[in-house]
Amino acid sequence: MNSLRCESVGLVETQYFKLQKQEKFHLALGGQLNYIDIAYETYGKLNNDKSNAILICHALSGNAHVGGYHQGDKKPGWWDAMIGKGRALDTDKYFVICSNVLGGCKGTTGPISINPDTNQPYGLSFPIITIKDMVNVQYQLLKYLGIKKLLSVIGGSMGGMQVLQWMALFPEKILSAIPISTTLKHTAQQIAFNEIGRQAIMADPNWKGGFYYGKSIPAKGLALARMLGHITYMSEKSMEDKFGRQRKGQPYPFRFNADFEVENYLHYKGDKFVERFDANSYLYITKAMDLFDITASGKTLDDIFRRLNAKILVIAFKSDWLYPIHQSKEIVKACKRAGLQTTFCEIASEYGHDAFLLEIEEQSHLISNFLKTVYKENKIKPLL
Amino acid sequence: MNSLRCESVGLVETQYFKLQKQEKFHLALGGQLNYIDIAYETYGKLNNDKSNAILICHALSGNAHVGGYHQGDKKPGWWDAMIGKGRALDTDKYFVICSNVLGGCKGTTGPISINPDTNQPYGLSFPIITIKDMVNVQYQLLKYLGIKKLLSVIGGSMGGMQVLQWMALFPEKILSAIPISTTLKHTAQQIAFNEIGRQAIMADPNWKGGFYYGKSIPAKGLALARMLGHITYMSEKSMEDKFGRQRKGQPYPFRFNADFEVENYLHYKGDKFVERFDANSYLYITKAMDLFDITASGKTLDDIFRRLNAKILVIAFKSDWLYPIHQSKEIVKACKRAGLQTTFCEIASEYGHDAFLLEIEEQSHLISNFLKTVYKENKIKPLL
Repeated sequence: MNSLRCESVGLVETQYFKLQKQEKFHLALGGQLNYIDIAYETYGKLNNDKSNAILICHALSGNAHVGGYHQGDKKPGWWDAMIGKGRALDTDKYFVICSNVLGGCKGTTGPISINPDTNQPYGLSFPIITIKDMVNVQYQLLKYLGIKKLLSVIGGSMGGMQVLQWMALFPEKILSAIPISTTLKHTAQQIAFNEIGRQAIMADPNWKGGFYYGKSIPAKGLALARMLGHITYMSEKSMEDKFGRQRKGQPYPFRFNADFEVENYLHYKGDKFVERFDANSYLYITKAMDLFDITASGKTLDDIFRRLNAKILVIAFKSDWLYPIHQSKEIVKACKRAGLQTTFCEIASEYGHDAFLLEIEEQSHLISNFLKTVYKENKIKPLL
Repeated sequence: MNSLRCESVGLVETQYFKLQKQEKFHLALGGQLNYIDIAYETYGKLNNDKSNAILICHALSGNAHVGGYHQGDKKPGWWDAMIGKGRALDTDKYFVICSNVLGGCKGTTGPISINPDTNQPYGLSFPIITIKDMVNVQYQLLKYLGIKKLLSVIGGSMGGMQVLQWMALFPEKILSAIPISTTLKHTAQQIAFNEIGRQAIMADPNWKGGFYYGKSIPAKGLALARMLGHITYMSEKSMEDKFGRQRKGQPYPFRFNADFEVENYLHYKGDKFVERFDANSYLYITKAMDLFDITASGKTLDDIFRRLNAKILVIAFKSDWLYPIHQSKEIVKACKRAGLQTTFCEIASEYGHDAFLLEIEEQSHLISNFLKTVYKENKIKPLL
């Protein structure tokens, strides 16, 4: 087999880990969860001293299935092109981990999960969670896997917030970090867009105060939230290039159905999302994003980043207007001020915020080289 | 009285004009309206040869009440600071007209109006209308007022689309035009944002297929549409400067109420809007905007603008991302190519799309001087 050949990790399975009840999990904003299941996937192998692990953190609508294929699926994981033999996250060298976030609906405990104390889904009795809580849960998973230090932690968008939170919370446990298309804190505009999505869900009569499980789901509201999300994920130009003013067929607009292809596309994307995502998860996770402010603890950026001894790669995309370049530049500035070895790459993509999922070639190149350096500088032991 | 003193036109009243039934009004996309009421306001006086008239076209949520005060009102019309003695639209010189658009809910016939043939509100039996229809109705009003030629036609956002439509439809009837913060055609992103607003309204169970008059109105849906609108009207920076991450008081987020001031503000704006606007009007007017494409007739931009012999002033604002600068530049390019005397002013405002309503000083200066030149060059007869 040609070792230079790039290939997907192939067939994979989601694994599960249960936090024991005796390890009651205290949440950042108060309250606790007595039971936590964590869904995760791993690719590649841990080396002897468990020093080759890389954690990938997913975005709002992502999940643990970042690479490879599930049995019967036609589509691979959401960042598959980055993971596998010869790829940026080379499974011949690295042990790659991704887990579904706390509050999610893809195997990790969230509002859709059954609360063992009541035998009912949590619904809105689920506590308010934060990015910090998500990272603390990931930390528990790593402890369980016996990993004391991460070679790197990588993520885009909300995944990037988790990366920054790892830097703040466990500075001694990471050798490097790659925050992509993200921000040190959610801004008024970012909060505002999320609030529209939440209000759309809660205005759906099927939402019923969050206790809709086993009944009709708030499909219209969730679809609407996702449709809006999609507008913010694309750039004005990418949307124009893809759809322009293409009509859906009928020359005379029939009342208020979708007349334009762009409307049709958003409806389709909204409807597909409803099939795979839980409306309450959308509420809890977007709220966690809005609450994210790395300096919320009262520490200055300098205090936070000076505790690190890690190499940082910050990636941002020119046409991303949801998490604009200037926000990534603030991360870079803070890291450099704190004396961290920091590289900033601004990629001239036209895909908007979605670029972190789509611009594989440029990111592969950057991340692959960055990781190789970290691997080499820290004399990571190769797999036998 | 010092003639240099600037002052509002003071107390004003909305006037009404009824198109006669024998003048059946044929719509651009087919269908007709047998009855049309037009609500309008005028300020200043027509000169002897009726050559000093300026038409102002309003935006999505605007109305005929652009200047002065209505009896008992604390707030003046929506562009009052531009209109009056010594102001940009100087009522000592000009006769200023503004009418509520066709499809509106502020006196001109729209879906909320009673259809005299059925004695019921039109609701969704109201035909699909276009910017062209709005302009044709304005033309009927001018005919009624005996005005054969406009000194200028001015408008921002959807008002700017009407200005462009005037240029295309009645080139021989305008001496000048001022399209502000607008576009030659609605783009995919602009259509997409409008579609979210419409879907929010139609997803409201109170909407009832558009026949909600006399019952509960789709308040939540309409408020949601307006909340989203407000995000797109502000720039990222103006929103951040105004709200940042200011909290609403409680340190612990209580479920999914508004935790941040920016959310609070959007809710307030949404709720206020519901008191003054009709949800079906929102559907019809946003659809008219989406259908707007000045070249939809098949004519080229060159064909359209070459028929004009008018002076053009195009105004745009740097931080406007809903109707971005490059769209205004396309208008300028098309006008210049067609040989029109065209001035382009890019104002370095941080208010986003809202700037056309807020940046009074700069616009006053530009518009005032522009109109003075048109007035002088065309030897308009002063008021006696």
